[in-house]
Amino acid sequence: MVKVLIVYHSRTGNTQKMAEYVKAGVEEAGALAILKRAEDTRPEDMNTADAVIIGSPTYYGLPAAEIKSLVDKSIKFHGEFEGKVGGAFASSANKGGGNETTIMAIIQALLIHGMIIPGSSKGDHYGPVSIGKPDEDVRIQCMNLGKRTVLVTSKLKASKTG
Amino acid sequence: MVKVLIVYHSRTGNTQKMAEYVKAGVEEAGALAILKRAEDTRPEDMNTADAVIIGSPTYYGLPAAEIKSLVDKSIKFHGEFEGKVGGAFASSANKGGGNETTIMAIIQALLIHGMIIPGSSKGDHYGPVSIGKPDEDVRIQCMNLGKRTVLVTSKLKASKTG
Amino acid sequence: MVKVLIVYHSRTGNTQKMAEYVKAGVEEAGALAILKRAEDTRPEDMNTADAVIIGSPTYYGLPAAEIKSLVDKSIKFHGEFEGKVGGAFASSANKGGGNETTIMAIIQALLIHGMIIPGSSKGDHYGPVSIGKPDEDVRIQCMNLGKRTVLVTSKLKASKTG
Amino acid sequence: MVKVLIVYHSRTGNTQKMAEYVKAGVEEAGALAILKRAEDTRPEDMNTADAVIIGSPTYYGLPAAEIKSLVDKSIKFHGEFEGKVGGAFASSANKGGGNETTIMAIIQALLIHGMIIPGSSKGDHYGPVSIGKPDEDVRIQCMNLGKRTVLVTSKLKASKTG
Repeated sequence: MVKVLIVYHSRTGNTQKMAEYVKAGVEEAGALAILKRAEDTRPEDMNTADAVIIGSPTYYGLPAAEIKSLVDKSIKFHGEFEGKVGGAFASSANKGGGNETTIMAIIQALLIHGMIIPGSSKGDHYGPVSIGKPDEDVRIQCMNLGKRTVLVTSKLKASKTG
Repeated sequence: MVKVLIVYHSRTGNTQKMAEYVKAGVEEAGALAILKRAEDTRPEDMNTADAVIIGSPTYYGLPAAEIKSLVDKSIKFHGEFEGKVGGAFASSANKGGGNETTIMAIIQALLIHGMIIPGSSKGDHYGPVSIGKPDEDVRIQCMNLGKRTVLVTSKLKASKTG
Repeated sequence: MVKVLIVYHSRTGNTQKMAEYVKAGVEEAGALAILKRAEDTRPEDMNTADAVIIGSPTYYGLPAAEIKSLVDKSIKFHGEFEGKVGGAFASSANKGGGNETTIMAIIQALLIHGMIIPGSSKGDHYGPVSIGKPDEDVRIQCMNLGKRTVLVTSKLKASKTG
Repeated sequence: MVKVLIVYHSRTGNTQKMAEYVKAGVEEAGALAILKRAEDTRPEDMNTADAVIIGSPTYYGLPAAEIKSLVDKSIKFHGEFEGKVGGAFASSANKGGGNETTIMAIIQALLIHGMIIPGSSKGDHYGPVSIGKPDEDVRIQCMNLGKRTVLVTSKLKASKTG
């Protein structure tokens, strides 16, 4: 069974809500979703998952220091995440406030781990963005991120064990 | 008198509208604004301006090829734009659709020309973003981009000739 | 059989050399590699490939206008590249000259097409970079890009048809 | 007198060495340079400087969590750094290892503070990059970053008080 770790940081609850929507998408696609705050996540949790999705509020156009701190610690597994699937999402107070650069920053970190990033031709292309409180469109974008992560991970895993 | 060149590409008219708002901001700040479509702009036009602001719709997370084509041609003046002031703006169909990465792409090109980029602590931080048709908030963001470009350019120019 | 399209732009021959090395990697991994200059590539060529790898010299921190022009034209297939695998490489005159931002720009475009991007935990993480003439290390990085593209594409394709 | 704060994080000493070279450039240009490790820097130190230059090793394509932590804390002065001058530099183990994206990440944060970023038409365009131990070229690039920061800051300040 595909196991997806969803790590997030949240102060206002907006990013947490997005994380829960991503979890719902993962589960709807028939996989196991584990939801953890960045502060409660150890690199080991990333290592035992088949896919890792990271969400953050937008602090100065980049993920929160709490997220970056986990990423920095994950170096102890450098090379071992190769071939896992990754994804990212972000919330921000304003459009044009740095949400896309926050998502791309997370994606860069995951690429450097050798992870595989599926994009999306519909909606929020790099990953879901919420401007303020997540609305129905954001819920759908987050569900879709969860679903497409499971889809790609399942294919790669099936092939591995096939 | 400070001279600001505003170059844009526009298919739907949204980016053109933004360019006009930027022009209004430049003029309100007491400077001369020259508005040109990318196809009608020569690198010489960039060279004779004190500041260059570039706007583009978001095509695959990057400025339109028409903008990139002008940027590539501007290499004939490489080194000579050093110290000019630069800025960028973008329109896109959706939030999360690549507008910030389009703006940052333009900013990267201008930094490589040695130009000086003023950010903004309010609103659209890297540069104005319009999701669909520019609304009143976008108008204000664009006016502000025009104004702060003139402000910084004036200071740098005053010092140069002072 | 996996079919990989390698599109490139090259003026000095450096990026072309890299493209040939990527092709060698694709072939060594047992797949079909098609090498095309951007000017000779139609979006249809992208559509009939299982994976698309794009290489460019670094012009102002971004891919050449010739590359961007092809990307802009590929909109006629928007949505249909979903699930294809993508990759990028770049050459530049200097380190710190914009090669990474060129690669990330291409990756952004491919993500917006819904394509799947495998990173690498070794060497040039986002994609191969050559500073000046490609040396032996660049050859290996390019071969590896070709190989890992085939590996991921094969797995996804096996699962699709399995 | 222009006051430039240089904040850095360093584990191997490479980024520290770069910071010292930037300091030498600032001093050669006749300004006051204050050198501080990120862990010893408070947002107040940023607030009292005319310009802030931040350097970091490349950890997963982004600045170290120690740098991000300082940036996050600087929100207490949000809006007050408007018009200060900013710059960035990075070290990495490999070319293509994420050094440019680390620099751009710092620049994004400074733009969101409303700071003014001077690029460079020569050498490392976004900011100095060292691959491994800083060599003579890196020393020059760092000196130049220090010098151009002072030059732009002086002009803006002269105009302010003029």
